[in-house]
Amino acid sequence: MTVFAKILAGTIPCHRVYEDEFVLAFLDVGPLSDGHVLVIPKEAKAQMHQLSDESAAALGRALPRVARAVLAATGATAYNILQNNGALAHQAVMHVHFHIVPRFDSSGLAFTWNAGTLDNERAKVLVTKMQAALAQ
Amino acid sequence: MTVFAKILAGTIPCHRVYEDEFVLAFLDVGPLSDGHVLVIPKEAKAQMHQLSDESAAALGRALPRVARAVLAATGATAYNILQNNGALAHQAVMHVHFHIVPRFDSSGLAFTWNAGTLDNERAKVLVTKMQAALAQ
Repeated sequence: MTVFAKILAGTIPCHRVYEDEFVLAFLDVGPLSDGHVLVIPKEAKAQMHQLSDESAAALGRALPRVARAVLAATGATAYNILQNNGALAHQAVMHVHFHIVPRFDSSGLAFTWNAGTLDNERAKVLVTKMQAALAQ
Repeated sequence: MTVFAKILAGTIPCHRVYEDEFVLAFLDVGPLSDGHVLVIPKEAKAQMHQLSDESAAALGRALPRVARAVLAATGATAYNILQNNGALAHQAVMHVHFHIVPRFDSSGLAFTWNAGTLDNERAKVLVTKMQAALAQ
């Protein structure tokens, strides 16, 4: 049982920000910046691609609502939303969670952007495979 | 008019992966890794907190579908989903977009995690302000 499942079950406390039928949002106890919030589905799935349509839609709907509250509470005007899937992608708790991390000059999510260039032939192969997967 | 608005209008081409009434997904031309996809709302808003419930829910619903296609096409098992808001948070195109970035050993989204510790008194202040904002 993950720590988030325990929070949902009420056996571990949290600083609750928002809740609806499908979603819970609460303060991250290890914040990257002031006002760092986690938004999680009540559906117990480890990763985003495993979520039901209903649960994923509810998560999407909650994100702007919670983001507005984060901005109002902190005075931030910029923020990152991050959701990690798999240990290789730095997922630490195996229950889907979105980080909303306000960005200030001195704190927030620190990342680098090592962008490549899309190869046209590879793009055609990828799109064909992705569309085939979506059609299933 | 942003480059994504032009893609939505059809005046700039894209490698289209997925489309529904509210959402378009296509390959990022500056990929962080093989199979890097952008998922955008058709609603023309710069940042996540400005999105309508309907548009945000459709985005959320699309993310697992597109993520499954990205995994199927690339063979990746890990990935990050990132959405940046504001120039300070490294947003480059001022139209909401979610990055789905497959993570391989050698490529993907590179970030560091400088976590602090949540102060209990500050948490109470934040939650009070956030809940007040959500109640409006």
